Amino acid sequence: MAEDKKLVEAITAMEDDFAQWYTDVVKKAELMVYSSVKGCMIFKPAGYAIWENIQKELDRRFKETGVENVYMPMFIPESLLQREKDHVEGFAPEVAWVTMGGLNNLTEKLCVRPTSETLFCDFYKDEIQSYRDLPKNYNQWCSVVRWEKETRPFLRSREFLWQEGHTVHATAEEAEERTQQMLNVYADFCEEILAIPVVKGRKTDKEKFAGAEATYTIEALMHDGKALQSGTSHNFGDGFAKAFGIQYTDRDNKLKYAHQTSWGVTTRLIGAVIMVHGDNSGLVLPPKVAPIQVCVVPIMQKKEGVLDKAYEIKDMLSNFRVKVDDSDKSPGWKRSEQEMRGIPVRVEIGPKDIEANQAIIARRDTGEKITVSIDELDVKVGEILEIMQKEMLERARAHREEHTSVATDYETFKDAVANKPGFIKAMWCGEQACEDKIKEETTATSRCMPFEQENLSDVCVCCGKPAVKMVYWGKAY
Amino acid sequence: MAEDKKLVEAITAMEDDFAQWYTDVVKKAELMVYSSVKGCMIFKPAGYAIWENIQKELDRRFKETGVENVYMPMFIPESLLQREKDHVEGFAPEVAWVTMGGLNNLTEKLCVRPTSETLFCDFYKDEIQSYRDLPKNYNQWCSVVRWEKETRPFLRSREFLWQEGHTVHATAEEAEERTQQMLNVYADFCEEILAIPVVKGRKTDKEKFAGAEATYTIEALMHDGKALQSGTSHNFGDGFAKAFGIQYTDRDNKLKYAHQTSWGVTTRLIGAVIMVHGDNSGLVLPPKVAPIQVCVVPIMQKKEGVLDKAYEIKDMLSNFRVKVDDSDKSPGWKRSEQEMRGIPVRVEIGPKDIEANQAIIARRDTGEKITVSIDELDVKVGEILEIMQKEMLERARAHREEHTSVATDYETFKDAVANKPGFIKAMWCGEQACEDKIKEETTATSRCMPFEQENLSDVCVCCGKPAVKMVYWGKAY
Repeated sequence: MAEDKKLVEAITAMEDDFAQWYTDVVKKAELMVYSSVKGCMIFKPAGYAIWENIQKELDRRFKETGVENVYMPMFIPESLLQREKDHVEGFAPEVAWVTMGGLNNLTEKLCVRPTSETLFCDFYKDEIQSYRDLPKNYNQWCSVVRWEKETRPFLRSREFLWQEGHTVHATAEEAEERTQQMLNVYADFCEEILAIPVVKGRKTDKEKFAGAEATYTIEALMHDGKALQSGTSHNFGDGFAKAFGIQYTDRDNKLKYAHQTSWGVTTRLIGAVIMVHGDNSGLVLPPKVAPIQVCVVPIMQKKEGVLDKAYEIKDMLSNFRVKVDDSDKSPGWKRSEQEMRGIPVRVEIGPKDIEANQAIIARRDTGEKITVSIDELDVKVGEILEIMQKEMLERARAHREEHTSVATDYETFKDAVANKPGFIKAMWCGEQACEDKIKEETTATSRCMPFEQENLSDVCVCCGKPAVKMVYWGKAY
Repeated sequence: MAEDKKLVEAITAMEDDFAQWYTDVVKKAELMVYSSVKGCMIFKPAGYAIWENIQKELDRRFKETGVENVYMPMFIPESLLQREKDHVEGFAPEVAWVTMGGLNNLTEKLCVRPTSETLFCDFYKDEIQSYRDLPKNYNQWCSVVRWEKETRPFLRSREFLWQEGHTVHATAEEAEERTQQMLNVYADFCEEILAIPVVKGRKTDKEKFAGAEATYTIEALMHDGKALQSGTSHNFGDGFAKAFGIQYTDRDNKLKYAHQTSWGVTTRLIGAVIMVHGDNSGLVLPPKVAPIQVCVVPIMQKKEGVLDKAYEIKDMLSNFRVKVDDSDKSPGWKRSEQEMRGIPVRVEIGPKDIEANQAIIARRDTGEKITVSIDELDVKVGEILEIMQKEMLERARAHREEHTSVATDYETFKDAVANKPGFIKAMWCGEQACEDKIKEETTATSRCMPFEQENLSDVCVCCGKPAVKMVYWGKAY
């Protein structure tokens, strides 16, 4: 029992120190470790398997909208990166540079892609001649590098995994439609699969992507009341097309510039899952994204028939992703481990249960335990996983509602940032000066101008001038 | 018709210039293009989709043997690369070096991984303490970089995609077993999915992987008689464990060095598919790996009901990956394009066919056409795809048999290399001097010492000293 406790004791309570709780969970659930390369992390099997499930589900949804996958080189020549002015200013200070190939210095240095707009544009300018070549809806799954100074597991690291979609369209309308379509794909995915409710909206000009005309975002609220930008979709207009010369001959035989979008989500979604659903026993994974959905824990497994029954149960539950923990650890240790790893359901089976043709099902998020007939196990496990998925989303939504406040004057706003962790809804005049002032004085940033606007007052919460938009504000990761 | 011909005319006949034929197919089938980064290629949708199918099938087979996926950083500090002597000698001359991060010079330069043994070892040394931590069967899908001087699409490029498995075991026996197990996974995959027969064997010391105790390989024969190393599996013994300090406490409480393996296949498998199965009309894809298995070509598609029928047929064939070519190109152009892209089956449907409730099925590899009732289409297409998959393997095997010769004296050997494209089986004394001489004088290299040994003669084909092994020799990509 001493051993069982040790595993759990090692986690800091989230109320005491949320950042340390996060680090503890990430390590104890064996999701990742840092490598000997500063700021670069290693995805261990339990962490990478979450990403594989995210990929599988998103990739299917992308393809349903006509997206095709491609792969671009990881290197970008310096001259190519510099082609679009805003873009290079945004990224050049934080890229890694390859200056030697083999034993020789390169004549032109190459950056390791921080994002691939420039490569896609360079490719599209040759691929696209006619309206018949449009649209192009391409995506790639890869890793990118940004030379960050401070890093945090999954949330910010020098190399991270993501997908980046890059599309080209004949018209501005079509590009805008695709930009919003992909934002909706992300939002639906987060709610349906990750059980994370998100606010959809547009970034202010200050917060938009380097080179974009408009950036849309999904913002999620973590358990500690901080916001996490969880996915973005950019409409480039024809800015990149003009910088790279991406033109097509339209039906009217006129040469026109194309319109483009890009959109991406990263492995920080794993961080979101941890920080939205985790508790003081460790990770809690939504069933739909959990690499293992059911852990069968045999009790007194050395007794004849117990392990056989455990494997039999695994076979009975073939609709789900099931693991039998047949290690030589104690049942108590196995329970703690299943909880730490966030496996949604635990099925316990011992000699007495076998005699009574029953098993115990324990639900990870609520701790609830029920005893069911083994004949009903398959149905019951299915029901519990479904309910758990649904209730996890509801709880996360309720938490967000409780942690969203309204401020119509600056004193209330400042008090909210200081004392009420969460989103703050407040009106804004549209001037960057107010965003800058708010950030400087409160550390809160504008998260987005939500699509669902409300008229909270007629004036900007900061300067008192006429308001143009309601904005979600908050401290952010 | 002039337009239809143009598409095909642009391919060089393989008998005239195989290398040019290959380049033509790769371009015309829209598998890839070169990027503006020298030696780096762009995988276009038709090329990347083949890789996705390879990944899906291999990943499933890996996981069935207990392999778990992880992700390691793409950078390796110089000092880490240098830890194992043979390994660094093998790779250091051909890596790309990152020397700047952001605006600063790095204190230690980082190479972009050419392969990740050193990263995995550095990780394993901390992860592995006890026999309970073994085995570790980890794999990653990623890209790697080798600063090659000469490049060819899919076969050799500065960046390429691959998977690299890295396993750790308690005993030498277990490591050897895993090394051979993964070679068999590769061989079965190549035969069953890619319809490519392979010779399994061991590399000579001269040809083995830098740092390995033994390298096993699968060697395939291309249409032009050149060999392609298509996958390798390495047994490292405890060499890397000693260099990196990977030790575990065994059941007997003694500290022991672990034993390791690594194994990989790359996107050059796409090159193999092209060069084994392609013909003068373009690519021919084995049904099991073809991203699109059936192309429905409507004839006189502007006539009422034709396009509807084509989509109806697509729905009827929902067991397969089907595309309706409803573009405004001519049927002749569509046929040429389907052939160029190697889509296994074409279904043609026009007004007269609809009237007779029939369709024409054309098979890509043989050109055979049959007329079938639409009611039977689903069954017939299934049969044809199955037979095609089987016969493609048989043809490739027959081609290899026809292009495998035996040499028991050096004159015959030299004549075979010069005049009989293909594998040459010949006895070898085991000395590198003979390998070097043969390579120098004939350009043929030792491909492998096959597991299925034959005693062709008692003496080395080169020096006449007693022979120890039969070797497959050949010119290689």
